[in-house]
Amino acid sequence: MAKRTGEKYQAIIEAAVKVIAGSGYHNAQVTRIAKEAGVADGTIYLYFENKEDVLISLFRTKMGQFTASAEKELSNLEDPFEMLARLIHLHFSRLQGDRNLAAVLQIELRQSDPSIRKNISQIIKEYYNLIEQIIKYGIDRGSFSPCMNPNVARKIVFGSLDEVATCWVLSARRYSLTDLTVPVYELIARGLSTDGKAPPFPVEILPLH
Amino acid sequence: MAKRTGEKYQAIIEAAVKVIAGSGYHNAQVTRIAKEAGVADGTIYLYFENKEDVLISLFRTKMGQFTASAEKELSNLEDPFEMLARLIHLHFSRLQGDRNLAAVLQIELRQSDPSIRKNISQIIKEYYNLIEQIIKYGIDRGSFSPCMNPNVARKIVFGSLDEVATCWVLSARRYSLTDLTVPVYELIARGLSTDGKAPPFPVEILPLH
Repeated sequence: MAKRTGEKYQAIIEAAVKVIAGSGYHNAQVTRIAKEAGVADGTIYLYFENKEDVLISLFRTKMGQFTASAEKELSNLEDPFEMLARLIHLHFSRLQGDRNLAAVLQIELRQSDPSIRKNISQIIKEYYNLIEQIIKYGIDRGSFSPCMNPNVARKIVFGSLDEVATCWVLSARRYSLTDLTVPVYELIARGLSTDGKAPPFPVEILPLH
Repeated sequence: MAKRTGEKYQAIIEAAVKVIAGSGYHNAQVTRIAKEAGVADGTIYLYFENKEDVLISLFRTKMGQFTASAEKELSNLEDPFEMLARLIHLHFSRLQGDRNLAAVLQIELRQSDPSIRKNISQIIKEYYNLIEQIIKYGIDRGSFSPCMNPNVARKIVFGSLDEVATCWVLSARRYSLTDLTVPVYELIARGLSTDGKAPPFPVEILPLH
């Protein structure tokens, strides 16, 4: 089993994000990734089996970091609507903060190759679970509609964030993704709510990120 | 310019759906598509420039048929909520009715290749416009929230339907996609509504398809 930690591992991951975002996954050469990371070509194979392994490891590392930090940030909150608001803001601000990573996550990772897809779907499950936990918690607290199927609601929440983010990455016109946090929150929060009324977006979240 | 109509053209499109769904776009051979369509290999090149052109034409044909029939069906309706309900039902029942087509649309078309992506996004615009028209109409009629940005709302509606459909295609467990029509409608309709109250799903829609 290859090593999965250390400075060089991290450097290769960061280099891969940049090279794959720039040339696309299929055209990205391992040699280019090595050069960008400042390591010898052979070094990559101490850490990764092949280019597919680089892509999947990149996703595992970045997604793991994101989900862990989101879980930590949400663990201090009690109100389900505030948790939802903060999750949407974290999702958008993370992507906006790293346009190369956004291009890799929203475009290059969407490969039809079954083995890549299988690995991706295993890795993203933790994030799906986090969203579903917020929904179940909101139902338990009486904030979110008890008639809702949490699994279907999770797909609607994730699908919405994902589509908004993909359109942002692909748009020829540059605009702020985080500017869409409030309108996306308002529609989804009203949809999830028990009585069709959701509290306004907690504005104190916005300037913090 | 190659011919874009006729029996053989249609037969090749149908064959391509089957072969691409079965082997994946990258492994799908033009020879296999020709054999499946019952035409000579060379005949394909009377209609299509290459395999990429087959994929894009397939999407154009299928998406064009879907959008046209949805427009026609919705044109008789007056209530924005009913239009939304019917759109969700049409979207899900079309995919459920042709599992091969669903696999091509939800998985194989999601190629990161820029030229494929550009063509796809041109073609899907008509469907995006249809969704956005329903939203604008609902706002004008006072049914949908006037605070909403129709473009953001469109991304939420499409993203939700798309994610629910992709999970259905990829699921190892077989279940009915159209069974999710009502829960998806309820959440989205409440989210779009002015007062957080959406009329119940018009059940007479369901047995018709």
